[in-house]
Amino acid sequence: MRAIEWVEDHLRLLDQTKIPHKIEFIEVLKVEQLIDAIVSLAVRGAPALGATGAYGVVTAMDQAKQENWDEKELEKQILRIRNARPTAVNLAWGADQAHKIISKGRDEVLKLAHKIAQEDEDGNKKMGKFAADWILNKTGKNKLNILTHCNTGMLATTEWGTAFGVIRELHNRGNVELVYADETRPLLQGSRLTAWELVQNKIPHLVLADGASSSTILRKKVDVALIGADRIAANGDTANKIGSLSVALACYEANIPFLVIAPESTIDLNCLSGEEIEIELRDDSEILNFNGQRVAPIESRGYNPAFDVTPAKYISAIVTQLGVIEVSKGETPAKRKTGK
Amino acid sequence: MRAIEWVEDHLRLLDQTKIPHKIEFIEVLKVEQLIDAIVSLAVRGAPALGATGAYGVVTAMDQAKQENWDEKELEKQILRIRNARPTAVNLAWGADQAHKIISKGRDEVLKLAHKIAQEDEDGNKKMGKFAADWILNKTGKNKLNILTHCNTGMLATTEWGTAFGVIRELHNRGNVELVYADETRPLLQGSRLTAWELVQNKIPHLVLADGASSSTILRKKVDVALIGADRIAANGDTANKIGSLSVALACYEANIPFLVIAPESTIDLNCLSGEEIEIELRDDSEILNFNGQRVAPIESRGYNPAFDVTPAKYISAIVTQLGVIEVSKGETPAKRKTGK
Repeated sequence: MRAIEWVEDHLRLLDQTKIPHKIEFIEVLKVEQLIDAIVSLAVRGAPALGATGAYGVVTAMDQAKQENWDEKELEKQILRIRNARPTAVNLAWGADQAHKIISKGRDEVLKLAHKIAQEDEDGNKKMGKFAADWILNKTGKNKLNILTHCNTGMLATTEWGTAFGVIRELHNRGNVELVYADETRPLLQGSRLTAWELVQNKIPHLVLADGASSSTILRKKVDVALIGADRIAANGDTANKIGSLSVALACYEANIPFLVIAPESTIDLNCLSGEEIEIELRDDSEILNFNGQRVAPIESRGYNPAFDVTPAKYISAIVTQLGVIEVSKGETPAKRKTGK
Repeated sequence: MRAIEWVEDHLRLLDQTKIPHKIEFIEVLKVEQLIDAIVSLAVRGAPALGATGAYGVVTAMDQAKQENWDEKELEKQILRIRNARPTAVNLAWGADQAHKIISKGRDEVLKLAHKIAQEDEDGNKKMGKFAADWILNKTGKNKLNILTHCNTGMLATTEWGTAFGVIRELHNRGNVELVYADETRPLLQGSRLTAWELVQNKIPHLVLADGASSSTILRKKVDVALIGADRIAANGDTANKIGSLSVALACYEANIPFLVIAPESTIDLNCLSGEEIEIELRDDSEILNFNGQRVAPIESRGYNPAFDVTPAKYISAIVTQLGVIEVSKGETPAKRKTGK
């Protein structure tokens, strides 16, 4: 099973809003369906959205042909895909890569999308090895208790996972004692998706409320915390799922490594710091309701930022497929680029 | 409406598990019903549990008479009430106060319970004034954005509220711009109870995921954070609802005041530091299910500590009915006691 797959003539997405209770797929035949899937988080996770962006251009090209769109309409629809989630730099990146070679024809664009998906998988496996080596060396421990936030596994990538890929790598090496999975409110990607992937991989785990992670970390029950990223600024500031910052602050106080694991495409050198990152505000019904049932009083409103920004100060290291950026030693994506 | 009230011959509790959708009362005629109410969190909040503990002794004495318990059985049942929630020092305190004067007869015990409830209300109003003065002076602001965690209002006390009482006091003075109410997973006391009380008091508010509070604080959208307490150690370390520590760490990093508002009965000078505080682990179904519906995979288990301990280092001040203990200036409950 793959969460993102091109099947014969169309893109097929595993509907992540149904996991862990149902395995259902969305057959994407139109741009509208793809945008719905992105906005409803049926497909999610920065790297998965990179491939989705590229495949989406093929979907748009196929629909253009069927419905006789002019070039302007095609451009407009590709732009809609590109901007469906403002914080997801990978989505825009994937769409842009594909958009650039449209003139080469639909089959070449599809080939590129496949290449992006394959490179993502290969990259994830590389960053998993880099991070596992770094963690074992840094902690000096053979059996690790690991805390993670949100979902960064097969469901969030095209295959293997970023932060979750590190857990798989460590598990394969026999170095995982226990994984603490934050439930990750409001959409519960931790209790629904990460827990499901932990079960699939037979990795011992406990699900906890996001508010419980700080004390679990301060009480030294955790050896390392691992998160993915939606966007990494040139100075190392990292936007990721709301609640990531709490984990970082607790690790900082407890002097426990806090690692960001993400592909190079997540790094946005044009974004100088976290202050430039726009925070997506999602519908407050995600906070006020649960499974369609109202929890809060009818008169109440909610505040629902989808992401937070963890300042580089609180990050031990950023690990990509190219290696480890030791942020706590003053390294940054920008400095690495310029060699300073 | 009162959340805790002695009606004619028995204790009546507002069932907080039904708020905000239904107003239902539990008529407590037996010890068993009271213990169920305490364990299910139908009655909750440290100060409310103080009065509940005292009233509960009357319930036990009445039941003893009806069912011809011997002295040993009565002692056993009072002890069950006293220990129904291990972290709730106020529950034990209230039960102990009443237990001490059992020999004076049932009516004297009831009078004492009423006195405890009245003193709680009076004390809450006093701490509200102390804290409001301190906050306005400290921040120098006229319109405050306030973040609070869990529920500390009328529902958690006998009347008025602790941290929530400060919000009411500031609101009455015209000093509240907006209240951010953490939803407070897993039992959602924030989105269910605090939001309901904010609606009742017509105070502008937004409900947010617990994981969103850190970034809301670091982005300087909050002027002060207020919490209650379940137990305060001699050195100022404070046990409170899980997730409080995250708020404290964010305030510490953002240099924003973090205040604990609680009655004197919450201070336990026999407990030297937070390390001695036993953390209640609640059933993991609270994490894995929602409204009886399974969220996580069947194979997953949860980790569900009910409380966390915020070290005194991260607390600006503790405010009781006797005044302000300036923890960030090195004051502690223990030093105040000994005058050192």
